[in-house]
Amino acid sequence: MNLDRLLEAEREAVEQGLQRLLPPADAWHPRLNTAMRHAVFAGGKRIRPILARLAHAAAGGDPSEITLAACGLELIHTYSLVHDDLPALDDDDLRRGRPTVHVAFDEATAILVGDALLTEGLGALARHPEGPSWAARRAEAVALVAAAAGALGMVGGQMEDLEATGGGAGPGAAERLERIHRHKTGCLLRASVEVGAVLAGLAGDDRERFGRFGERLGLAFQVADDLLDATASAREMGKSPGKDAAAGKLTFVTLHGLEATRRILDGLEEELLALAREIEGDGGALGAVASFVCRRRA
Amino acid sequence: MNLDRLLEAEREAVEQGLQRLLPPADAWHPRLNTAMRHAVFAGGKRIRPILARLAHAAAGGDPSEITLAACGLELIHTYSLVHDDLPALDDDDLRRGRPTVHVAFDEATAILVGDALLTEGLGALARHPEGPSWAARRAEAVALVAAAAGALGMVGGQMEDLEATGGGAGPGAAERLERIHRHKTGCLLRASVEVGAVLAGLAGDDRERFGRFGERLGLAFQVADDLLDATASAREMGKSPGKDAAAGKLTFVTLHGLEATRRILDGLEEELLALAREIEGDGGALGAVASFVCRRRA
Repeated sequence: MNLDRLLEAEREAVEQGLQRLLPPADAWHPRLNTAMRHAVFAGGKRIRPILARLAHAAAGGDPSEITLAACGLELIHTYSLVHDDLPALDDDDLRRGRPTVHVAFDEATAILVGDALLTEGLGALARHPEGPSWAARRAEAVALVAAAAGALGMVGGQMEDLEATGGGAGPGAAERLERIHRHKTGCLLRASVEVGAVLAGLAGDDRERFGRFGERLGLAFQVADDLLDATASAREMGKSPGKDAAAGKLTFVTLHGLEATRRILDGLEEELLALAREIEGDGGALGAVASFVCRRRA
Repeated sequence: MNLDRLLEAEREAVEQGLQRLLPPADAWHPRLNTAMRHAVFAGGKRIRPILARLAHAAAGGDPSEITLAACGLELIHTYSLVHDDLPALDDDDLRRGRPTVHVAFDEATAILVGDALLTEGLGALARHPEGPSWAARRAEAVALVAAAAGALGMVGGQMEDLEATGGGAGPGAAERLERIHRHKTGCLLRASVEVGAVLAGLAGDDRERFGRFGERLGLAFQVADDLLDATASAREMGKSPGKDAAAGKLTFVTLHGLEATRRILDGLEEELLALAREIEGDGGALGAVASFVCRRRA
């Protein structure tokens, strides 16, 4: 499989879906819509909607039918970045090489942009795919994504991450670090894969296999992110590197060191490839994406 | 009808529903859960979930079946208050007589509390009432509430309100003011009434009658709020009065004066009572609530 070409085609489908989901920049209210588009069209990798589409295909569905629902996941991911970047949270000026929303616009606008993206994201999952035959699956998709993104998921993880900053590597640090990542990044990635399966009508153990793959992929994603923060240059990452260590933030690298973190990631890649084979047999797209996530350098 | 007793019983049902929806204060993550409860259990009037329950009953449903879904509306309303109170937006220290979330906790926590409440609110609408026979109505409820709360609804209205502050009473001010209120407050109140009808299985013109009642009620609500801000004491309101005028904020009172604003509100009450009669005949609960909203003094 040519992974680059596959991801390129996937990204193109997602970009078109996002264009359709978001209000035009000049429609009411132009400042809000322009700022939402600034946040969303900033060259993201679109991993979450791509995972939903690929999982949907692996579960026997037609991925083109769920593109708009899948794009709802990207809006939710983007909201979390916009709010995390705020001065009261991570206080980041740069995101994917461009000024963050509160820098390019202002803080009030960035708060509202995040609120709107979260609302529109869950709304897209409630509306798409259209038609009465999809209604029950749509409701299930919103329920599972809201649970993953809410107080017991992503937002809870962000809260614990904030409290842990500066906490260092004392007792329980490894468990805390894994808990933060599982919630802050893992839950929504797991939900992205699961949405693809649920929209294809899977339930029970079949659905759970997809969920498990998504969960481990989420952990791999965060470990890779920590490695990148510790090693990459600003140009490669499009954000300020070394920031985590400078802020005394708990990461896999500050806790285990570079070499051990690389070994953790290699182990996760093996585990993910085995899970992907269970789902789709040899040489499938989910396995290829898992390797991409574990080996990415930017 | 004894409106006080009705509203008291309604509020009691809603409080119990909110207790069931929110994670316990000592569960993970305790700081987030405690702050969410600080925001939600602050003596609100619970107008939105009550409207949903009463509308559901007026449409022939059993209101006890939709309590948790209706409580989702209150979580969404509360999120909007928590974010509106932030320093970057309205910068309010006091809400219903108690310190706002960013004062009682901190700004980062207040941002996350709002994010979690919005997510859990839409999630509650996606999950409740449980059971496959409700699934299509649940999806429709999430879709309509998300549309009301999102970029083309509540968040858009908040954006325009921010931009209009200090704009004064120039040409187009009356239209702008009504547009702000229609989006910022009206959309979610309309959606609350409509959710009750949709969960009862209404569609088309039948559903639209409920929506229209909710929309006009939303406008009345905001006109009454402006009147209160201009006339009530801090003790009566539980928030800082006269703040709108001091901030150069556009309100019905700063634009039309006290007397004309009172006449607008009287006209709205008449219109609302006529709409309520169309829906439920004479002496129904929706009409009683409309009068309550138009005549409230705190």
